[in-house]
Amino acid sequence: MTDDTKWLVKAIEEAAETAIKKDGTYWRASYTREDASVTALLREYMESSGMETFFDAVGNLHGLIKGREKDVIMTGSHRDTVKDGGKYDGILGVLCSIRAAGSLLGQLGQPQKTVEVVAMVEEESSRFTASDYIGSCNIAGILPASAFDLADDEGVTIQQALTEAGFRGAPADKRRDEIKHFIELHVEQGGVLENEGLQIGIIRSIVGQWGGSIIFEGRQNHAGTTPMSLRRDPVPVMCRFINELFTWTDSYSDDMVLTIGKIDVFPGSPNVIPQKVSFTYDARSSLPELGKAIMEKIYQLRDKYNGDISVKVIPAWHDEPAYLDREGVSQLESVVNDLGFPYKVMNSGAGHDSQNMVKSYPTNMIFVPSVDGISHNSKEFTRHEDINAGFEVLKEYIRRLAWSEDC
Amino acid sequence: MTDDTKWLVKAIEEAAETAIKKDGTYWRASYTREDASVTALLREYMESSGMETFFDAVGNLHGLIKGREKDVIMTGSHRDTVKDGGKYDGILGVLCSIRAAGSLLGQLGQPQKTVEVVAMVEEESSRFTASDYIGSCNIAGILPASAFDLADDEGVTIQQALTEAGFRGAPADKRRDEIKHFIELHVEQGGVLENEGLQIGIIRSIVGQWGGSIIFEGRQNHAGTTPMSLRRDPVPVMCRFINELFTWTDSYSDDMVLTIGKIDVFPGSPNVIPQKVSFTYDARSSLPELGKAIMEKIYQLRDKYNGDISVKVIPAWHDEPAYLDREGVSQLESVVNDLGFPYKVMNSGAGHDSQNMVKSYPTNMIFVPSVDGISHNSKEFTRHEDINAGFEVLKEYIRRLAWSEDC
Repeated sequence: MTDDTKWLVKAIEEAAETAIKKDGTYWRASYTREDASVTALLREYMESSGMETFFDAVGNLHGLIKGREKDVIMTGSHRDTVKDGGKYDGILGVLCSIRAAGSLLGQLGQPQKTVEVVAMVEEESSRFTASDYIGSCNIAGILPASAFDLADDEGVTIQQALTEAGFRGAPADKRRDEIKHFIELHVEQGGVLENEGLQIGIIRSIVGQWGGSIIFEGRQNHAGTTPMSLRRDPVPVMCRFINELFTWTDSYSDDMVLTIGKIDVFPGSPNVIPQKVSFTYDARSSLPELGKAIMEKIYQLRDKYNGDISVKVIPAWHDEPAYLDREGVSQLESVVNDLGFPYKVMNSGAGHDSQNMVKSYPTNMIFVPSVDGISHNSKEFTRHEDINAGFEVLKEYIRRLAWSEDC
Repeated sequence: MTDDTKWLVKAIEEAAETAIKKDGTYWRASYTREDASVTALLREYMESSGMETFFDAVGNLHGLIKGREKDVIMTGSHRDTVKDGGKYDGILGVLCSIRAAGSLLGQLGQPQKTVEVVAMVEEESSRFTASDYIGSCNIAGILPASAFDLADDEGVTIQQALTEAGFRGAPADKRRDEIKHFIELHVEQGGVLENEGLQIGIIRSIVGQWGGSIIFEGRQNHAGTTPMSLRRDPVPVMCRFINELFTWTDSYSDDMVLTIGKIDVFPGSPNVIPQKVSFTYDARSSLPELGKAIMEKIYQLRDKYNGDISVKVIPAWHDEPAYLDREGVSQLESVVNDLGFPYKVMNSGAGHDSQNMVKSYPTNMIFVPSVDGISHNSKEFTRHEDINAGFEVLKEYIRRLAWSEDC
């Protein structure tokens, strides 16, 4: 193990300690004791690496290395975790960024461009459901003030939580023109790299997401005393709908994924014909026309099946695909080739802070493999040699962006 | 309204008062304060109608009119309700029995045969899940002692609850040879009679039930980062299975019903490919060969789909169809024809105490319509004219069984 990897592995464990619960699971929700504990730790890392630190209005932690120019190369990821999450998702990118920028400063002295490491808040929406990337949207200058009205399960709003945690809580109303590039390292959270024996993913795009739920309502009745001909049972209709939707999706399965992760049945008793059933759909594709097509298919199926059983489509979330910086992808390919790590250019199927940053700044992402594709789970793990590969690629890319003579 | 109907309507309301909760819903679980309250009321009705009353070992309340013979004609139904139940299911049969036997005694004096009215306990399994008809099984002499080990949600066993309620709690180990006939009046709990404009159903058989659950296990994964080709998603497999099962059932829909009342998805998050899904099946038919056939179909589908996704069938309950007394059906037809009520001979799709009584005694059932087919619900209602029809049929049938000269 290199010294850098040793430092990273130790820091991953120290950061995990801030999130661990009595039952051994991890959860670092935003604006909590666990969050304050991890920012204290990260601040220490940043300051001992020679950075000036500050929080912005929503609580993103920044570590600054002033360059000869005011132009900023920003790097980092998020510091929150989902409930029952793991040790790598988010924080690995923050730690690699601190170590990479800190080492470069130690080795090469003041950079040409200013380097800013960021540990962003509230990426996972694990405390404030549908909070939609408070941290990165604030830096990108695209956060509506109304975002602060969202409340957690206890009724505490983001505005209240922010203020109690000591932050100002007014969103930035515009992009920061001095930021010239954002680069984020993250775990893959899927099994593609591992399956193909690769160490690095260079992200071309972050898929678009089209999500919501579809509700089927019939008539509740007794399972024994209602003949089939008198029933208005929503279950067979829902299953036919799902079958047709999956069959349609299968013909686009290279470019699209579809997940039905939740099915609700009311009242949900074995001997009662359900009144109402519903399922959630989550379709993702890097091709916007496929997002449009699956929504058309869903409405076509609604029209086909709506009748004795009423069928309603409730779209709930929607992100267009985000295309990362093309020139950055080429530069990263050149870095990875120079360093000799096996890699591929790929799309991200999960959402990331980078999808918001790219709306205001040239942005790129580096993926490292997740063992068995597992994430959002205490079993989440990335091998040391893959951490090393990701770290080296990130460091060299930051060097070229901020320290090289022609940068 | 006749005097009898007036009495019944008032008694239905008085009995409902014993079960009503603060929120306006009804629940009379076995061996509770509500149960003690209704037995006190029923005892009063029985005794003021000239019956001697007693409880048996499991808490069935009996009201006895001694005849010139020891042979017993028994009539009644159950006194418990499901949670969020209604005012008619069960208790209507008890009240009609008390009123019919009491009026006959008043009008005709001592009967030839002994008449015994029974208000049975624990038919609905609403407190002790799967308690399987404690009351009627005890009278039929087919209750295993092990039945008393079942516990409610608070961990109180039937044995404990029985004893605390003041009953002896040793099951009868044999049938009572002196019982010559059992007759039960009950609400239909379905919409067939109302749909066809009929007032009386004479029950030919109580359907058999084949129930359980089918479990599909795949591999949990991230909804975004796992391409369709790397997924082992149990949802599409479950929906194809359900489709095929309903398609198959539809070809037997005159003689069989199938209900999928509960679907569980684990972990049940919109952005997670489920690890495991399951559904309950509840198939009912009065033809035992159809029960056999649907179970064969279920196992055939299991073999077809078991593979990448593991498919397991867990049968959980099974009752063979119960055929009620044929001669009794003919006698009831003659009674109903004499009284001039529109009727049909039909099967019961719900389970009843009669299905246990028939294992030891000639048994018959009379149905009265449920408005809109609703039951197990506070909206449960049977029209006064239909209560009157059912009461008159029951009374005349009891007269012929117990008071007539050639009975």
